[in-house]
Amino acid sequence: MSDTSTICAISTPPGIGGIAVIRLSGESAVMIADSLFDGGSTRQPLSELPGGIFRVGLLRDGDQAIDEVVVSLFRAPHSYTGEDVVEVSCHGSLYIQQKIVSMMIEKGARMAAPGEFTQRAFLNGKMDLSQAEAVADLIASSNAAAHKIAMHQMRGGFSGEIRKLREQLLQFTALIELELDFSEEDVEFADRDALGKLIGEIESLVRHLLESFRLGNAIKNGIPVAIAGETNVGKSTLLNALLNEEKAIVSDIHGTTRDVIEDVVNIHGTAFRFFDTAGIRNTSDEIEIMGIARSFSKMHQAEIILLVVDLSVVSPTLPGLIADIRRKIRNQHLIIVGNKVDKPVAETVDALNSLALNPGEDLVFISAKTKTNIDLLIEKMQETLSLNKVAPNDIIVSNLRHYEALTHAHAAILRVQKGLSDRISGDFLSQDIRECLWYLGSIVGEVTEDDVLGYIFKNFCIGK
Amino acid sequence: MSDTSTICAISTPPGIGGIAVIRLSGESAVMIADSLFDGGSTRQPLSELPGGIFRVGLLRDGDQAIDEVVVSLFRAPHSYTGEDVVEVSCHGSLYIQQKIVSMMIEKGARMAAPGEFTQRAFLNGKMDLSQAEAVADLIASSNAAAHKIAMHQMRGGFSGEIRKLREQLLQFTALIELELDFSEEDVEFADRDALGKLIGEIESLVRHLLESFRLGNAIKNGIPVAIAGETNVGKSTLLNALLNEEKAIVSDIHGTTRDVIEDVVNIHGTAFRFFDTAGIRNTSDEIEIMGIARSFSKMHQAEIILLVVDLSVVSPTLPGLIADIRRKIRNQHLIIVGNKVDKPVAETVDALNSLALNPGEDLVFISAKTKTNIDLLIEKMQETLSLNKVAPNDIIVSNLRHYEALTHAHAAILRVQKGLSDRISGDFLSQDIRECLWYLGSIVGEVTEDDVLGYIFKNFCIGK
Repeated sequence: MSDTSTICAISTPPGIGGIAVIRLSGESAVMIADSLFDGGSTRQPLSELPGGIFRVGLLRDGDQAIDEVVVSLFRAPHSYTGEDVVEVSCHGSLYIQQKIVSMMIEKGARMAAPGEFTQRAFLNGKMDLSQAEAVADLIASSNAAAHKIAMHQMRGGFSGEIRKLREQLLQFTALIELELDFSEEDVEFADRDALGKLIGEIESLVRHLLESFRLGNAIKNGIPVAIAGETNVGKSTLLNALLNEEKAIVSDIHGTTRDVIEDVVNIHGTAFRFFDTAGIRNTSDEIEIMGIARSFSKMHQAEIILLVVDLSVVSPTLPGLIADIRRKIRNQHLIIVGNKVDKPVAETVDALNSLALNPGEDLVFISAKTKTNIDLLIEKMQETLSLNKVAPNDIIVSNLRHYEALTHAHAAILRVQKGLSDRISGDFLSQDIRECLWYLGSIVGEVTEDDVLGYIFKNFCIGK
Repeated sequence: MSDTSTICAISTPPGIGGIAVIRLSGESAVMIADSLFDGGSTRQPLSELPGGIFRVGLLRDGDQAIDEVVVSLFRAPHSYTGEDVVEVSCHGSLYIQQKIVSMMIEKGARMAAPGEFTQRAFLNGKMDLSQAEAVADLIASSNAAAHKIAMHQMRGGFSGEIRKLREQLLQFTALIELELDFSEEDVEFADRDALGKLIGEIESLVRHLLESFRLGNAIKNGIPVAIAGETNVGKSTLLNALLNEEKAIVSDIHGTTRDVIEDVVNIHGTAFRFFDTAGIRNTSDEIEIMGIARSFSKMHQAEIILLVVDLSVVSPTLPGLIADIRRKIRNQHLIIVGNKVDKPVAETVDALNSLALNPGEDLVFISAKTKTNIDLLIEKMQETLSLNKVAPNDIIVSNLRHYEALTHAHAAILRVQKGLSDRISGDFLSQDIRECLWYLGSIVGEVTEDDVLGYIFKNFCIGK
């Protein structure tokens, strides 16, 4: 059912620039380009040229020269879409860009839908679905960590992992069939052990991928960091020091920050999503009480909690607050931030130093006001989720659709494991294995439904 | 003094898109691209390839793959700048764009200044100065008329006209020298006639170019149109009908529009710059009096004045107003717009129909409210300045720097003409001719000063 009509779109960012690129793809791409392009009287038509070369010349609308352009020729199947592709590099005026697109449409092309070039690449077997999705992630990536995941996925790293899983499942199926063949002869035990071992490996691999989503999602959308603490300890000042600008309101009046302020900032190649939260204290102000409730709710959504403590005062409620937070949070990295080292009170410093830190907890002394030790704090934050340990070949799931498919696949694997230990017949196991294979196949697009494709590609930008 | 250092810049519009193009130019362009580009183990290095081809491969930062890119190779002198040029077409994420530029800089390139690629094209003789300036105009062109002028200028049409003028001046000089050679033998008359005829032709050509600036400037910046008339005649409604949106405040209270509102809109390929002006009437409101004064001042800046008349009322002051405007304006195209044809009063219609129209005046009956005859009005407006008669080979000056140089050249020519009729000696004439040649040369860049170049190219976008 493949659509070979010729599509065109402006592929460069919208707006005015030195140059812009307009892309044509489809069976008439070269013919349409030829009808508009004037490479000079002595030149061959584009249709007689091989791929891999470009030509400089005029783009004409009848007698009128529209622009001097560079036309690059990609021949099927050696192109991004797998079809004949022509890229026209023109001067980046809005008028010229729109004019060229309208000329192409006049000659028989149609406007490409968002992501349609990449969709064709998928449909023509140039990439699988997870690679196609990575193209959109790659274009959207705004920091080094997100870029690394997307690039690895686009180059097929994640697909390779899924292929490995599918191969292991097929191996498992082969073993089951072996067992079925010999079942009447009552051959068993050894095979069941091998089966158990293999499904255990598969389960562990899928679980590993599922667990990576927490990191992958955090990298893609920014690692959520809640800044918490009692009132007036300098939370907003710390946020400003981290953001390096004056976004939150800072004042000396207790309870200034009532709303949760959110800010994404790239620090050394990693995106952090900061929440400033309302100060936690006993209050009768109803709006403030709601703010404190939100603070605790936000802490649960965070990967990192910065509990800011004012070193310049002695707070009788501080030990209770630390105990409270330790009790309420799960899995989060808690960094206790002793603020205002510029004017410390020994008693509070001692109290913090004598805390027995649990695994996943850190203690840092800083001054948000004088920006002392802010770099040290950032270092501690980056150790969270082992961001610096993301090796190029580590597979990290960052796509919600993949995460959901893996969740379903994992549930099916657990059913297989249980069936195996319950010693149910191979016939019944194979149904769950098929389900598992189906979900894994949906990730790379070996099984797809049209509405899934539509959903995936509509989020692309036009021209890709 | 030519700078052969290698420069780089993002040449596509700023922002996120399907693809972006990063340009390298200079003696190390190919070497730098080679050090980053991995075209696969079996491929030749870029340095061994001829121009006119492109390669698909990976851009690497050490071990890490940064992007899959297309690298196009232009070999000196067959490139935009006349130097070796490499264009890297990458995925259009902000991260990737910035990363690639920073990698190029690490390998020895430096960030290009605005317009530096085009400046090199000029310095390397790929185009003259007026052509280089046309590149910026071409990129900025937002309508068909401005695009046509810029494209014609970029392709050397204007330069050709200047060259023709310079040739005629040199021919004139030759005649003068002939006269000088024979002066002692008292040969004359015939030569003086030929000289007078030739300088007359030159003067007429320069005057023609100078006069075209009014049109060229209007096309480039939008043709200024003042909408004038008594209060409450529907001026704001007309502006809205022309703009096709609700920008001006429309109300039934006399004197609503006190400020001059400005809006540029493209209508059928021509940009018009509309001014809505305060209604003109007897008033004691001081702010309104200031507004009326501004209305008359704006009328002087306009090329077209739309004098709106309310057909549904009989205004005793209308004949006086028409007479007033006719007296105060010079050269502008006055279009008397009878508004509200949906509810006309015979008396006012008759009064307008009985007006004897002068050349450069038009009368149109419309309804701004029901959008009746708006297209007819637009047609009349487009006839102004003969916009539709701009043939592809008509030279139109649209650049202020060229206009100023031509003004100086023209003044020198007039001095030559006067000197000729005063029968002063050829020695003295040649000084003015040299001045004229100098100004014409400055247009195409045969004579330039560094600060002029700096001024011209700093207004370019980066990457061009």
